[in-house]
Amino acid sequence: MKPRLFTPGPTPVPEETLLELARPVTYHRSAEAKAILAEVTEDLKYVFRTANPVFTLTSSGTGGMEAAVSSCLAAGEKVILLTAGRWGERWRGVLKAHGANIVAVEVPYGKAVTPEMAEAAVKANPDAKAVFATLSETSTGVGHDVAAFGKIVAPTEALLIVDGISGLGAMECRVDEWNIDVCVTGSQKALMLPPGLAFVSVSDKAWKKMDATPVRNFYFDLRRYRKSQLESDTPFTPANTLIRAQRASLKRIRTEGIENLWARHERIAKAARAAVRAMGLQNFAERPNSALTVISVPAGVDGSGTLKKLEKQYGYKLADGQDAMKGKIWRLSHMGYTDAFEVLGAISALELVLAEGGFNLQIGSGVAAFQQAYAAGK
Amino acid sequence: MKPRLFTPGPTPVPEETLLELARPVTYHRSAEAKAILAEVTEDLKYVFRTANPVFTLTSSGTGGMEAAVSSCLAAGEKVILLTAGRWGERWRGVLKAHGANIVAVEVPYGKAVTPEMAEAAVKANPDAKAVFATLSETSTGVGHDVAAFGKIVAPTEALLIVDGISGLGAMECRVDEWNIDVCVTGSQKALMLPPGLAFVSVSDKAWKKMDATPVRNFYFDLRRYRKSQLESDTPFTPANTLIRAQRASLKRIRTEGIENLWARHERIAKAARAAVRAMGLQNFAERPNSALTVISVPAGVDGSGTLKKLEKQYGYKLADGQDAMKGKIWRLSHMGYTDAFEVLGAISALELVLAEGGFNLQIGSGVAAFQQAYAAGK
Repeated sequence: MKPRLFTPGPTPVPEETLLELARPVTYHRSAEAKAILAEVTEDLKYVFRTANPVFTLTSSGTGGMEAAVSSCLAAGEKVILLTAGRWGERWRGVLKAHGANIVAVEVPYGKAVTPEMAEAAVKANPDAKAVFATLSETSTGVGHDVAAFGKIVAPTEALLIVDGISGLGAMECRVDEWNIDVCVTGSQKALMLPPGLAFVSVSDKAWKKMDATPVRNFYFDLRRYRKSQLESDTPFTPANTLIRAQRASLKRIRTEGIENLWARHERIAKAARAAVRAMGLQNFAERPNSALTVISVPAGVDGSGTLKKLEKQYGYKLADGQDAMKGKIWRLSHMGYTDAFEVLGAISALELVLAEGGFNLQIGSGVAAFQQAYAAGK
Repeated sequence: MKPRLFTPGPTPVPEETLLELARPVTYHRSAEAKAILAEVTEDLKYVFRTANPVFTLTSSGTGGMEAAVSSCLAAGEKVILLTAGRWGERWRGVLKAHGANIVAVEVPYGKAVTPEMAEAAVKANPDAKAVFATLSETSTGVGHDVAAFGKIVAPTEALLIVDGISGLGAMECRVDEWNIDVCVTGSQKALMLPPGLAFVSVSDKAWKKMDATPVRNFYFDLRRYRKSQLESDTPFTPANTLIRAQRASLKRIRTEGIENLWARHERIAKAARAAVRAMGLQNFAERPNSALTVISVPAGVDGSGTLKKLEKQYGYKLADGQDAMKGKIWRLSHMGYTDAFEVLGAISALELVLAEGGFNLQIGSGVAAFQQAYAAGK
């Protein structure tokens, strides 16, 4: 049986990138290492759609989130948190650890925070120093209208700080045009690398706030990264073999083209959602994003058990819901190095397992709907 | 020309470990991933010589240092810093970022902090909450008598917190026997992996202090790692392909045996120092450790230029001095996956480059002395 990774991070890594990881280790302070970092930084700016600097941190995405929080905020400062799931709650956890005064705009799992809600919160809290949002809420499959958030926040003094960890590269995101002051992503999603790196962009508006904020942190103090980047360097020993491999995956992304990458994800996502409906299942997210498809487990079906069977019988590794959502949703990633034919295979496997479990389903309905929607999506 | 890495981190990685890094990525929350982490944790405890838990962080070694500082100390608490170089100063930087009240015991580059100095500081500051030390001061090649520090600190209320980043595995270090409360190391030194992981052990005494210390951090809060480790898990998405590869390098270490590993490093280090003397050069460190050999650049020789020639002509990449030491010392690592025959090659290349540059040297004196000392060291 062939193992197939469909979790919303980590995601499959291209073969040429994996081989890059097997190359001998080199010194991280050499001219060659600096040239690689400079090239990766330029390619990241392309992916982020920004002219701002983008920094490479050796950490998970959460580390990048903490870099944003601890570099931009003094203790006790007021912030607006737009939260629609577990990753919005991750912002809350980081903010609480750093003593922020949090005004939360919260919607239930599966729903999206609307621009109207964000606008009301921004108007009611003119003293807020930052608005925290999530591009792709990976715990529910919801995507947020970050472009609209940007229009609301830009005229104010507040910074717009966005978790783009599972969204960036998998759905439209234009950091500069959308007025995102700090955007965070991770290597293990649409950027086609194993986990280990976080990337953070910083706007001029954010620098001004950071420069007026006391130091609260060492490893995640973005000012240290700014200083090192003047010499194409990093302040701390980076995971340099991951950076070298990231170069290979970024080349693949540049060859495909960022808008084509977004379009590919969107086309696959639409086809996957059509398949879900055709199988008699429901898409969980009210405002779905293109990074992953989240399916509500139908009544009478063992959600976690079905995923175990999918993996054991057919090699397809999807993700369960997290925390309170466990057993209630299935999460199917189509981020990064995953194409339509592979997602079709996952739909096929899901059909088979559901039918074998006695779920009332027209065999072939899912794959046919996928195929039709995919063909129509061109 | 064959490139050869002799920098004191990163260090060469065994071929079987590199190949492990090229294997397909898997899900980090699977039962298999948990089993791998549990195995790595057990092998790390073996390397650390501890029964305490050892945590795996995705960060550089500095991240591990910050985890120690921010988890153990409240702002304004008094600490004793034993510093003998750039990495002692790294402790100072992290401590300052977290508002510690630092009593520094400082010696010039090349010297070691003695147990007597440490004892005097501990006696004079009974209210100190922790003593910070460096096992191997990689910037100078000095090794500290951490066993003696442990005897001094253990009877007090203070914690002994040790940067073992370049030392652990390359020289004797017994965390439990020596009463080290928190020991930090990194993957890219004697543990034979690329950079990207930090490992931190925590004693019962340290837990007590942590549990009485307010939360100051999120990603580096060791209490989060303790909670996750109950389920053989990590609180944040780890660099799981590095962890899987670390397993391979740790198996190699267990096969060699930790005491044999220490003995190998010591034997090579003694031979390297004998070679240095035989070439008419001087060893820089007053109390040298076995992780690396640090050579004083002789008068009239262009230190940085010599290293460039070594690399360009013969492929040997040694490290220059850092900051104010640049051009004044050469740093030759023999950590981890580097054996005596390879270090002999580096001595040979250094002899050739020095002679070609007009340095008065008996060609063959270095390699012969290395060989003799190595043979005698058995």
